[in-house]
Amino acid sequence: MCIRDSLTKPSYKAGIALRNGFRLYSAIPGNVQLFEEADIKASGDINSLLDDVDVIIDTSPGKTGLENKKLYEGKGKKAIFQGGEPAEVAEASFNAHSNYDSAFGKNYVRVVSCNTTGLCRTLNGIRESFGIEDVYAVLIRRSADPGDSKKGPINAIVPVNSIPSHHGPDVKTVIPSLNIVTSAVKVPTTIMHLHIVRARLSRPATREQVLEQLRNAGRVLLVSESSGIKSTAEVMEWAREIGRKRADLFEVAVWEESVNVQGDMLYFMQAVHQESDVVPENVDAVRAMFRLMGRDESIAKTDKSLSIGV
Amino acid sequence: MCIRDSLTKPSYKAGIALRNGFRLYSAIPGNVQLFEEADIKASGDINSLLDDVDVIIDTSPGKTGLENKKLYEGKGKKAIFQGGEPAEVAEASFNAHSNYDSAFGKNYVRVVSCNTTGLCRTLNGIRESFGIEDVYAVLIRRSADPGDSKKGPINAIVPVNSIPSHHGPDVKTVIPSLNIVTSAVKVPTTIMHLHIVRARLSRPATREQVLEQLRNAGRVLLVSESSGIKSTAEVMEWAREIGRKRADLFEVAVWEESVNVQGDMLYFMQAVHQESDVVPENVDAVRAMFRLMGRDESIAKTDKSLSIGV
Amino acid sequence: MCIRDSLTKPSYKAGIALRNGFRLYSAIPGNVQLFEEADIKASGDINSLLDDVDVIIDTSPGKTGLENKKLYEGKGKKAIFQGGEPAEVAEASFNAHSNYDSAFGKNYVRVVSCNTTGLCRTLNGIRESFGIEDVYAVLIRRSADPGDSKKGPINAIVPVNSIPSHHGPDVKTVIPSLNIVTSAVKVPTTIMHLHIVRARLSRPATREQVLEQLRNAGRVLLVSESSGIKSTAEVMEWAREIGRKRADLFEVAVWEESVNVQGDMLYFMQAVHQESDVVPENVDAVRAMFRLMGRDESIAKTDKSLSIGV
Amino acid sequence: MCIRDSLTKPSYKAGIALRNGFRLYSAIPGNVQLFEEADIKASGDINSLLDDVDVIIDTSPGKTGLENKKLYEGKGKKAIFQGGEPAEVAEASFNAHSNYDSAFGKNYVRVVSCNTTGLCRTLNGIRESFGIEDVYAVLIRRSADPGDSKKGPINAIVPVNSIPSHHGPDVKTVIPSLNIVTSAVKVPTTIMHLHIVRARLSRPATREQVLEQLRNAGRVLLVSESSGIKSTAEVMEWAREIGRKRADLFEVAVWEESVNVQGDMLYFMQAVHQESDVVPENVDAVRAMFRLMGRDESIAKTDKSLSIGV
Repeated sequence: MCIRDSLTKPSYKAGIALRNGFRLYSAIPGNVQLFEEADIKASGDINSLLDDVDVIIDTSPGKTGLENKKLYEGKGKKAIFQGGEPAEVAEASFNAHSNYDSAFGKNYVRVVSCNTTGLCRTLNGIRESFGIEDVYAVLIRRSADPGDSKKGPINAIVPVNSIPSHHGPDVKTVIPSLNIVTSAVKVPTTIMHLHIVRARLSRPATREQVLEQLRNAGRVLLVSESSGIKSTAEVMEWAREIGRKRADLFEVAVWEESVNVQGDMLYFMQAVHQESDVVPENVDAVRAMFRLMGRDESIAKTDKSLSIGV
Repeated sequence: MCIRDSLTKPSYKAGIALRNGFRLYSAIPGNVQLFEEADIKASGDINSLLDDVDVIIDTSPGKTGLENKKLYEGKGKKAIFQGGEPAEVAEASFNAHSNYDSAFGKNYVRVVSCNTTGLCRTLNGIRESFGIEDVYAVLIRRSADPGDSKKGPINAIVPVNSIPSHHGPDVKTVIPSLNIVTSAVKVPTTIMHLHIVRARLSRPATREQVLEQLRNAGRVLLVSESSGIKSTAEVMEWAREIGRKRADLFEVAVWEESVNVQGDMLYFMQAVHQESDVVPENVDAVRAMFRLMGRDESIAKTDKSLSIGV
Repeated sequence: MCIRDSLTKPSYKAGIALRNGFRLYSAIPGNVQLFEEADIKASGDINSLLDDVDVIIDTSPGKTGLENKKLYEGKGKKAIFQGGEPAEVAEASFNAHSNYDSAFGKNYVRVVSCNTTGLCRTLNGIRESFGIEDVYAVLIRRSADPGDSKKGPINAIVPVNSIPSHHGPDVKTVIPSLNIVTSAVKVPTTIMHLHIVRARLSRPATREQVLEQLRNAGRVLLVSESSGIKSTAEVMEWAREIGRKRADLFEVAVWEESVNVQGDMLYFMQAVHQESDVVPENVDAVRAMFRLMGRDESIAKTDKSLSIGV
Repeated sequence: MCIRDSLTKPSYKAGIALRNGFRLYSAIPGNVQLFEEADIKASGDINSLLDDVDVIIDTSPGKTGLENKKLYEGKGKKAIFQGGEPAEVAEASFNAHSNYDSAFGKNYVRVVSCNTTGLCRTLNGIRESFGIEDVYAVLIRRSADPGDSKKGPINAIVPVNSIPSHHGPDVKTVIPSLNIVTSAVKVPTTIMHLHIVRARLSRPATREQVLEQLRNAGRVLLVSESSGIKSTAEVMEWAREIGRKRADLFEVAVWEESVNVQGDMLYFMQAVHQESDVVPENVDAVRAMFRLMGRDESIAKTDKSLSIGV
């Protein structure tokens, strides 16, 4: 297995990969020498890499997947694409809890984006437990990742004017029957997205029943303002303190106090760690593609190895 | 007429008020001497002020209105309160286009908050033109004003966990028949709030009809991403450049590209200048309270004096 | 006179220029039609513009001045360049108080950048009054302008690693004898730069003497933390409230409390409004280039027309 | 050994402490019950804690150290205070590389603040290698920690008007002979402080010699813009990726490109992780106080256990 990131030229990220014991291959064949000149050991390029692996997890920048796929097909290798690619690149758009079997035995699978993964996580369980007539979600998106010092805005809210946004249709690539519409804005923060969800339930449910459902859902974390978790800042602080590498938070965090039921309408807010919530999904996708085990067994194994739900 | 701001002690704001030709009165009776010691001329305190005016516009910090009102009642003076006060403080909650007559001849009127004003502005016209079955709005709130260097967050999204938020019921103090629900978050920006609105219309409407309605609505400004107004930053830049004092934007700005109709559902996004969109409303409220003129005449006069709609 | 901004294609800025009564010319000859197609009246292009004016104030993006200059030379027109251009583009690098006469009768003058202008303003007067052996200044730069929603960083401090930075040598293009070194960083704010200055004086001076000098210096504003001006946020708030168009602050703001003398070393901090402190300098440069009047008369006339020092 | 943090009432931080296997004691004696009511197991209060430990690391909020010390004296326990306390609280102000022996056998030691620690780290080695006549440092401080969603500013630079700032004298509590002056500002970022240092060397040195000295200095990390580490954002990203718990960075990071020598003047910029650079110093302080081993042995042991310099 390998991960295809965007390492086309030497940088501190290449140094970290080696430091962490990974072998490094240049994503662009001609650039191997660039790495060598920078004293960074490259084990070869994308071609030699493909000879050695069974499956490639392609995390290159969005919209290059279709081009890359030709290469993988040529070598007869399975591949996992990420949410930045169009659904057409793969045989299935994947979320472990929602549609594990869709990837079973497949050669090309797309793990949906961090936002879509977050929505599938909570909504699929709620749908199974109570039914969902329709759902409207507003996505407040972080504008840059923590390690990015270029992108702004510094002091503005940016509307995503293609309203409804593309996230709704993307959720349907995983859960086709879900009647979902979304809108989005970008704000000046780096650490997490926040979703505001409003779902009309098919069957009556109390706030307590929904909280119970969320408490038992997979890869969902209930947090509470009353315990001091007042914003995405404290959610990420919690993630740092429990000791996972990179201070990642694989779970979607739902604020207990935000969960509310009024008539048949359910409201809640959740925070998504854009950098890591798809990590467990990629692991499960590999297992499904190679028919290694069934959904529940795979999820349990992944969760254990990543300390999720402990 | 006077404006009661929170000037309880000397500060650069006091200096500006004098520089701009206003007389200054200490909001706290005992503090007149403080101003004098700071070489800032105070014309008296709140008591002497009340003797000289016909109406007071009370913009003191939220929740002190009920206490202040006793003073105004004692002096037999009319007063306008702001949206930070509970509706109970006044005989009417006011928005010029939506319910001008509610303030006609009244002694105590409450001009609703910047966010509620923004929602009334656009929704009242849409309701009158097309009917609204129900509306859901998400408010992305700025966390501090531009002149505030204390409040954060610097890098977080803060959920307002009392969901639905108080803004929905507040809109109903102005438009009781409107079936509206709202949610809110706070984000690290200082310049504007942004609202994401989703309204189910009673009567069929095309996107073009809605745009036409908004184009002709009062104190509403259509802006477009295609002209370079990509965020609240460029909206405020526009306000600066057209030359109003303090670079204020009295209008609510709606993004043309965000206006969309899908079936009976209307979507749009609007930006609200929290510091100034209630200014014209306060002026109209004074005219209504003194029965000086009718709605349309007052609005036209206010708009002309503030260069709105030019 | 005309101002050459970067209007190469239609945008909301073009609309504002027309709204404010300016005639508009396309900076790129072939693009006149683009404006017409966008229903924005263009009076012609850069060539027809040059036929009509006596002097052009070129504020196009940095490093294009040398190319533009050929055009101005071909038409025999005087031109003022801005600080983003290399000093070589002009016959003189200009700051009104520091070297007005250097531009007298010249055809090509460069008004130095906002940061350099800010440093010249305070340091030239201090140098004249007390002498300066050497000065070290650290520039904390805003990373984007208020109307910019693209540039970051959102949450980082960016070192300018060419240390010493280019600002020191740039001050010397105006005051050649000043022994100055500078360093710089960029931070996530949009509203102002802040300078931390440390100058070794040639002649003994008390804190009070320096304050008195600054109080009487031109285009310098003393602000105080004790009056509530605790950061660049309140400085800009002050600028908004005094009523200048665009809420500009033409003066450099020095914090009274930051002024300190220890032995022969003077310390102070000043804030620079990057968008506007060079405006009065450009006006004075025009007068000098046309030999219209002398330094003091021009400065007084400019200050009066812009309400500086009132 | 124990760590006295500010846990005076239940919060998510208490839950994390227990989750990580720590025993919890209420800092305020009367509050044990509060924890129990919140279902958080408290092993007792500060008094019972003191009976069980040999030394207390007091990280309570600044300026409460003197009060706390009475308690520790009454129980006859050694204590380490942090940089927020005045130097008078302890027998020595401590930095491992600079003055390890000052804490040897002492009962009360103060580990200086993150900023002072950062300055001591680099300057002490440079002083030993080349001599320092005088040094001026400007501190660009982060305004809030990553887990703090209350403090601002959101969009401003805040001058610390007590100029020179208190950091210079604080460095002298560790290195009394160092002739150092500092100034400081606060900026809207959460992740790191950045220092701009200018030191006049006693003995001639080349840029390469200084780089070599820094490369071999303890707890100092050379980073480079050319490898993609362009700001504090990428420094922290590096720290996340190398896999330390909490993504902490115990080392001070110096930008290679910022190191410059001009005549006898040395310039460089360094980034300080305010949350963690004092962690190794606290560990060393304990060893010194109990005479467990000498400086070099303790530093080596601490560095190994924290993976510093690997």
